[in-house]
Amino acid sequence: MTTRTSTAPSAQALYDAMSGLAGPLSSGEGASPDFAAAPRAAAGEEPSVLILGAGVGGLTAAYELGRLGYRCTVLEPQSRTGGRNRTARKGDKLYELDGKGNSPVLTHTCAFDKGLYLNLGPGRIPYHHRRVLKYCTDLGVALEPYIMETTANVLHRAGHTPPGQPWRNRRIANDTRGHLAALLSATMVGRDEFTGRLKDLLRKFGDLDAEGEYHGSTRSGYAEPLDVHEFPTPAPPLPLAELIDSQFWKHSFYQPVDYLWQATMFQPVGGMDKIVHALTERITSEHEVTVELEAEVTSVGLTSDGVSVTYRSGGKELTASADYCVSNIPLPVLKELALTGFSRDFADAIRAVDFAPTCKVGWQANRRFWEDDHNQIYGGISFTDHPITQFWYPSNDYFSKTGTLTGAYNFGDNALDMGKRTPDDRLALARDGAAQLHREFLEKTTVPQDLGVTIAWHKVPHQLGGWADWDPADPAHQIAYKQLLQPEGNGRFYVVGDQASPLPGWQEGAMMSAQYVTAQILGLLPRTAPETVQVPDAAFLTQGL
Amino acid sequence: MTTRTSTAPSAQALYDAMSGLAGPLSSGEGASPDFAAAPRAAAGEEPSVLILGAGVGGLTAAYELGRLGYRCTVLEPQSRTGGRNRTARKGDKLYELDGKGNSPVLTHTCAFDKGLYLNLGPGRIPYHHRRVLKYCTDLGVALEPYIMETTANVLHRAGHTPPGQPWRNRRIANDTRGHLAALLSATMVGRDEFTGRLKDLLRKFGDLDAEGEYHGSTRSGYAEPLDVHEFPTPAPPLPLAELIDSQFWKHSFYQPVDYLWQATMFQPVGGMDKIVHALTERITSEHEVTVELEAEVTSVGLTSDGVSVTYRSGGKELTASADYCVSNIPLPVLKELALTGFSRDFADAIRAVDFAPTCKVGWQANRRFWEDDHNQIYGGISFTDHPITQFWYPSNDYFSKTGTLTGAYNFGDNALDMGKRTPDDRLALARDGAAQLHREFLEKTTVPQDLGVTIAWHKVPHQLGGWADWDPADPAHQIAYKQLLQPEGNGRFYVVGDQASPLPGWQEGAMMSAQYVTAQILGLLPRTAPETVQVPDAAFLTQGL
Repeated sequence: MTTRTSTAPSAQALYDAMSGLAGPLSSGEGASPDFAAAPRAAAGEEPSVLILGAGVGGLTAAYELGRLGYRCTVLEPQSRTGGRNRTARKGDKLYELDGKGNSPVLTHTCAFDKGLYLNLGPGRIPYHHRRVLKYCTDLGVALEPYIMETTANVLHRAGHTPPGQPWRNRRIANDTRGHLAALLSATMVGRDEFTGRLKDLLRKFGDLDAEGEYHGSTRSGYAEPLDVHEFPTPAPPLPLAELIDSQFWKHSFYQPVDYLWQATMFQPVGGMDKIVHALTERITSEHEVTVELEAEVTSVGLTSDGVSVTYRSGGKELTASADYCVSNIPLPVLKELALTGFSRDFADAIRAVDFAPTCKVGWQANRRFWEDDHNQIYGGISFTDHPITQFWYPSNDYFSKTGTLTGAYNFGDNALDMGKRTPDDRLALARDGAAQLHREFLEKTTVPQDLGVTIAWHKVPHQLGGWADWDPADPAHQIAYKQLLQPEGNGRFYVVGDQASPLPGWQEGAMMSAQYVTAQILGLLPRTAPETVQVPDAAFLTQGL
Repeated sequence: MTTRTSTAPSAQALYDAMSGLAGPLSSGEGASPDFAAAPRAAAGEEPSVLILGAGVGGLTAAYELGRLGYRCTVLEPQSRTGGRNRTARKGDKLYELDGKGNSPVLTHTCAFDKGLYLNLGPGRIPYHHRRVLKYCTDLGVALEPYIMETTANVLHRAGHTPPGQPWRNRRIANDTRGHLAALLSATMVGRDEFTGRLKDLLRKFGDLDAEGEYHGSTRSGYAEPLDVHEFPTPAPPLPLAELIDSQFWKHSFYQPVDYLWQATMFQPVGGMDKIVHALTERITSEHEVTVELEAEVTSVGLTSDGVSVTYRSGGKELTASADYCVSNIPLPVLKELALTGFSRDFADAIRAVDFAPTCKVGWQANRRFWEDDHNQIYGGISFTDHPITQFWYPSNDYFSKTGTLTGAYNFGDNALDMGKRTPDDRLALARDGAAQLHREFLEKTTVPQDLGVTIAWHKVPHQLGGWADWDPADPAHQIAYKQLLQPEGNGRFYVVGDQASPLPGWQEGAMMSAQYVTAQILGLLPRTAPETVQVPDAAFLTQGL
C-alpha cells in the first residue's frame, strides 16, 4: 500500500521545507517547516516524550511535538521556565553558586520600580532569525525594534579618548571612512573611466572634497548648534593617527556591521521572556503538555524501548519513563548526571565543550539622562575597554521618565573576574566603568546603587555559562558537535538547544535545533549527521570577533 | 530702576539659551529656549498677533507667543491645520491645481482601510532635532523609531541589477567596503607599527582575510539557509567592476550615512499629523489662540503701528489688524498677495527662491509581503533609478496583516513629470517602478490600484512645493535669505517656516524659525540679521546630494 489519501504533505515535502526558501532575494535563512501538516499520531498510540529542561529549545520541542499529539512532559529544575531567557523585574530573586559547597546563594532581589525590566539573557532578534519571528507572530508576542547602534553612542578607550569625553560613534565611523577613502583616492592615478568612477564613489563613500581629500564631514556631527544664520561646519576630524593609535576597532566597534546585528533587529515588547511565557501558556493550555517545575533530573538511563529518568521533586525522588527523551540540559550540567546506556562517544562529546563565562549588570535610572540634550542617545551600545565592555541603552519606552540600562556585558577573563566578586563589588566595578561614559554615575541618586543587579551566567545553577563555546579550530569539537546531532539509544535520546545548533547563544539556534530533533523523531530527517559538519564559531557568533 | 525682583531670567540668559548647549558630547544641536520663563505681557496690555498659515511654523509661533499672553489669531486657508505635515487616512480628500484655471481639482479620496495611514509630507525626525522631540514630549505625542535603513532593502538599477533581482543593501554596502579595503590594504607596504595597525583596521573594516584580500563576507548575507550541520559561507561578492559600473552611489545609497538620517530616527505613533493635532489642541484650549480655518488671506498692509490683513471667509471679505504679523505662508504663495508698505528688498526676497517640486505615492497592501521570508524587509527605503526614485516600507505595525507603502518619493524632473500626469497615470507609473522591486506589484490584488493615492506638492493649493529650494551658490539667494531673517515694518511683520531656516523641508527648521521670530518679537534677539548669513543647501538637506 503506497497510495495515500491524506492531504498531509509527504515526508519529502517536509524535508524540502526544512531546507528553507531560496529565491533571488533569499537571505540564506529558511522558513520554519510546517510540522503541523505532518500526520498526527493515531489516537491511543501517541508516543510519550520526556523533555529535560524548559529552556527555549525544550519548550519549542514540546510545542512542535505536542501539537502533533505526542504526550510531552517537561521537567524543569527551576521555579520558572525559560532557562537563559530571563527578564529581571521587581521582586525577582537571582541565585548563583557560591563556589565553595557549590550551593546556590541569593545575589540580588531585583528592586526595580514596577513596570521596569531588564533582559538578563538574550536581548535581540535579527530580522533573519525567521523561526523566532514566526513563533512570536504565531504566539501573539508583540515585537518592537531593538536599536543595535545609534551614531550618538560612544566609545571609551583609556589613554586615547580624552578623560570624560568618549568619542561619538559618528565621529569614529565617519572620520575613519573619510581618511581611508582619501588614502585610497590618492593612490588612484589612472584617467580611465573605471578610475574616474571609483574616485567618484570614494568621494561619496568618504564625503571627500572635489580633490579627493578628507577635511571632516557633517556626518560626524556639527561643531556648534545650528541657528537660522548658519549651517555649521563639521568639527575638525579625529586625526587618522589618533584613530589608528586607539585601535578602536578592537572594541567591537564594527560588530553592528555583521549580519547578526544588522538593522532591523527586534525585541518583544515588555521583555524577552514574553516568548517563554507565551510558549509555556500555549503548550500547557492547548497541547496538553505537562510542565513540572522544581523537578531536577538526577539520572537518565537508556532502556531497550525508551528512556528512564529519575528526578527530585518536592523532596522525593521520582522516576519517569517515555518512548523518547529530548534533553535541553546544558552540556556542563548534563555531564554531571548519572547516565547509563549511553555510548562512549556521547559521553566524550558532552565533555568536549565548555560553556562561556559571561556577565551582565542591570541598573535602574531614575532619569533617562542618556536621552537628554547633552547625550541624545536612544538605544544602541557604547563600547569601552573597561572590564564592563558593553553598555546598553534601552530600546523601549523612549522619552519616558525612568529606564533600565545594561551596565555591563562582558566575556572571557573580564567575566570570570567579575563573577568572582561579591554582588556589591561587581556593582562598584560597573559604576566605575559607567562613569567613564556618563558623569551621572559619579553620584548615586540618578542611578541608585541598591537598585543594581548582576548576573554571572557561568555561576547560575542549572546553566553554568552563556553558551557552548564551540571553536572550529578544536579537533575535539569537530567530533563532539557532530555526535550531538545524532540521537543516542537507537533514536530514543536527543540533545537540543542552541548548544547543538550553528547559533550558540541565540534563540534561533535553540528553535532550529528543536525543529531538527522534531524532524528526526518524526522520521523526516535522517538520524545520522552528514559525514562532515561544521563546528560553530561561538566567539564570532556572539561577539562578532 | 534697574533692580529686578522677578525670578524670570534676564534677556541675556534667554539669549544664551538660544545658542543651545555645548559640552564635550554636544551634537551641535541646541536645546529649545524656555520662553515660558520670559516675562508675561501685563494684563490688559497683551499685544495682538496675526499668524498667517497654520503650518508647523505658524502653530509653533502661536504656541510660544500664546503662552506668554500674546493674543494670537491664526488664519488658515485650508480646512485643516498642518500645512505640509499631512497624513492620509480613509476619506481624506486630496486636491491639486489643475494647471489651467489654476483651480483646485479633487485627485483622490483616500480609500485606505480604517486604521491605516501614510505620511504625505514629513515622515521622520532625526535624534538631534531637539525642538521637534521636545515639543512632542511636552505635548504628549508618542514616538516610535523610524527605520531609515535595513540591510534587507534593495537597489534597482536598470541594465545593472539583474531583471527582477535587485541587489540587497547588505551586499552593496559590504562588498563595496570589502573591495575598497582590499585595494587600500594592497597599497600598504611599510612594516612599521602604524602600517600594521592600519592593515589590521582594514581587515576589520572590510572583513578581509589574513592576507588583506576580500573574498566575500557573511555581512552580505548567507549564500544558503543555515542548518544545524553547516554555517554557510557568504555568497560570492558582487565584483568591484560591476559595482563601479552600476554607479549605485548615485541613487542615494549613502543617504542614511548623512547626519540627518542617522539612527535613531523617530516618527509619531499613528501618523506625523499627531504633532499638528496636539499643537492645535494645546494652543486653542490652553493659550486662547483662535484658529480660523478656511480663511484665505488676500492682502497684507503695514501700518504705522501694526499690520492690517484682509481675508476671505465664508464668502465674505474680512479685515483684521494686529500689533504683529507672523507669516507662515509659503513664499510662492505670499508673493502673489497684495502687499502694501513692504520694502523693495522684501518684495525681491520673496521672489528670489522657488519651492522644489516633489511627489509621493501611497499604496495600501492587503498583505505585508515585504516582511515575508522571501523579502524580510522591516522599514527602510529601497532605491531605484526608475522615476519613483524611493520606495519606503512602514516603520510601524510590523507583523500585522496589512500596511501602507510609500510607492514613490521623487524630486526635480521626475517630480515635475509625475505631477503632469493624471492620478491614474501616476499610479500606473508607480506600479511599474514598484514591480521592478517587488513582483507582488505585477498583479493588483495584493496592492489594489484603486487604493493608491498620489500627491504632487508643487501643485497643492496654498503650498506650491515641497520646500524652499535654497542654493548657496546663487547670489540672489544670499541676499534674499538674509532679508527674510529680518522683520518688515519696523519690527511688525515676520516670516516663519522651514523656508526661513537652515533646514528647509524639516519641521525642526519650522520650529527653529518660529522660536527665532518669537525671540525677535520679545526683544531677546536683534531684529537685524548678522552681516553674513549662510544660505541653506536644500538639495543636500533633503536628499543628501
